[in-house]
Amino acid sequence: MVNIVNDMSLIGQQMLDGVVTSYPHLAQMDKTGIIYQKHQDDQIIPIISGGGSGHEPAHFGFVGRGMLTAAVSGPIFVPPKAKHIFQAIQTVNRGKGVFLIIKNFEADLKEFHQAIQEANQAGISTKYVISHDDISVDTYNFHMRHRGVAGTILLHKILGQAAVQGASLDQLEDLALELSVHIHTLAVATRPATIPGQDTPLFQLGPQEISFGIGIHGEPGYRTVNFVSSERLANELVNKLKMKFRWQDGDEYIVLINNLGATPLMEQLIFTNDVMRLLELEGIKVNFLKTGKYMTSLDMAGLSLTMCPIKNQLWLDYLQAPTQAFAW
Amino acid sequence: MVNIVNDMSLIGQQMLDGVVTSYPHLAQMDKTGIIYQKHQDDQIIPIISGGGSGHEPAHFGFVGRGMLTAAVSGPIFVPPKAKHIFQAIQTVNRGKGVFLIIKNFEADLKEFHQAIQEANQAGISTKYVISHDDISVDTYNFHMRHRGVAGTILLHKILGQAAVQGASLDQLEDLALELSVHIHTLAVATRPATIPGQDTPLFQLGPQEISFGIGIHGEPGYRTVNFVSSERLANELVNKLKMKFRWQDGDEYIVLINNLGATPLMEQLIFTNDVMRLLELEGIKVNFLKTGKYMTSLDMAGLSLTMCPIKNQLWLDYLQAPTQAFAW
Repeated sequence: MVNIVNDMSLIGQQMLDGVVTSYPHLAQMDKTGIIYQKHQDDQIIPIISGGGSGHEPAHFGFVGRGMLTAAVSGPIFVPPKAKHIFQAIQTVNRGKGVFLIIKNFEADLKEFHQAIQEANQAGISTKYVISHDDISVDTYNFHMRHRGVAGTILLHKILGQAAVQGASLDQLEDLALELSVHIHTLAVATRPATIPGQDTPLFQLGPQEISFGIGIHGEPGYRTVNFVSSERLANELVNKLKMKFRWQDGDEYIVLINNLGATPLMEQLIFTNDVMRLLELEGIKVNFLKTGKYMTSLDMAGLSLTMCPIKNQLWLDYLQAPTQAFAW
Repeated sequence: MVNIVNDMSLIGQQMLDGVVTSYPHLAQMDKTGIIYQKHQDDQIIPIISGGGSGHEPAHFGFVGRGMLTAAVSGPIFVPPKAKHIFQAIQTVNRGKGVFLIIKNFEADLKEFHQAIQEANQAGISTKYVISHDDISVDTYNFHMRHRGVAGTILLHKILGQAAVQGASLDQLEDLALELSVHIHTLAVATRPATIPGQDTPLFQLGPQEISFGIGIHGEPGYRTVNFVSSERLANELVNKLKMKFRWQDGDEYIVLINNLGATPLMEQLIFTNDVMRLLELEGIKVNFLKTGKYMTSLDMAGLSLTMCPIKNQLWLDYLQAPTQAFAW
């Protein structure tokens, strides 16, 4: 299938041009991958996230009052350079420090850590959290991969609103550390992603096959099976999360269902219904449900299920607060 | 590719179950395809739209204060039955009449007209508008097809807000007739749609091919060419709309860019940027831009461009007003 692009080398910049053209509350710094709030509130501790492109609307779609102050994009599936992350930190810093939300991938950690070091050397206080919600396992050793995936968006929203409510840099760190260990995600793909300009997808799936535990950069999953039904698929994801959470009857949860890109809304809603009926049978209470496209992988089709027990009523209040970010 | 569904015969109902599970402001009437506002304001003239499924989020995604009062879905690409449209009219009627927005397809007109007749016989006043924004031409006789496509969403928003502002049934009709003749749309596909459970797409496109003027039910376009670039594609759509509008330097426009389903946000934003740069070169002023998924066609990939000259400042005010509808 054709990709609606111009020169391949201009994809990232032209996409960000489209972002600021479409959303008047956002501005960009040319040639850096930085999208930021045009009217930043100086009283609020700024929050930055970012990563490779190809996951749209992550992360620029979450820039706006009540979520992120800025997002930094790199090339497709490649994290932004440390110097651009540092530039974003300098841009949003108002003297009270800057908080960063980093997805747990080695290449991302390297660039963000270097930027944080530079900021510290420049006298800018920083704190950060590493999002590691993915519970998929490595097929070699069955260790959990702990990649940062769709659950990262819950951090954006809850921390973003905490900042609006006046949280200090240290309070944001406490909240982030408390929260991030409770967010877990598992994904399934029905079609692998293909990088624009390439002829073959990043892994192979037969026309009737689905793959559990895939990543957001074309990483294959832990198990490929023939598709049976949306219900069976929901069942696999719910059961794997249940083993992790060991929930009790009456426990209260946040649920985020993420469309990995090209799954029709019709199918996403059928799957959402199946997940919610299963959770009802499990006896748990879903106090917050969000279903949509938050963290995609180019043209991949598939869905992920993120859950988080509500350990603190504030998490729910912060999720329910309005935000200016266009993709929430 | 697998479709994430259960029993094929339950697709429509399970999708709507997913809608009311996900969006607390919406309710459904079982086995009718009707989604409606849970808390309807009795002072506002109710507005109904609907059509076949497969175009999600149209139309239930536009139900909410400030847009539609109810939406009625039929099976995939098949309009709802007249009796269900009539049931929706009865459900939302508060004694001051009901307004309907109908997409211009023969099968849709038949069902809606029958429902309107039944309503009139039951003593319920109704008025309606037929949305006919598509400027694609028939390849046999080069007549315009005037199908109702993505531009229909502008009617939902502008009429919905007019109703909130207190417009009477007659005033809604006047506004609808004034507005609908000025909304024009043209679409392009990079991949045809495939109906769930079928093996072959509804028309054929080579891997490098795109088709201009396609419809939203798998109707092929008027011209299939090899893809060159997003800019060239934007150029074709803008030029065809220019021939229709014959705009002058400084004219003010509304622009709606609709993702037909599976086009990645990255590509949609690049195309949006190309369209906006071309319109800037044309010297016209875009006072309202909206880019997203509004009227899709299952798993089709492609985009459409809708434009409407701002003949009345109220149109712009109504577009900019907030709404509860989740897909706006």
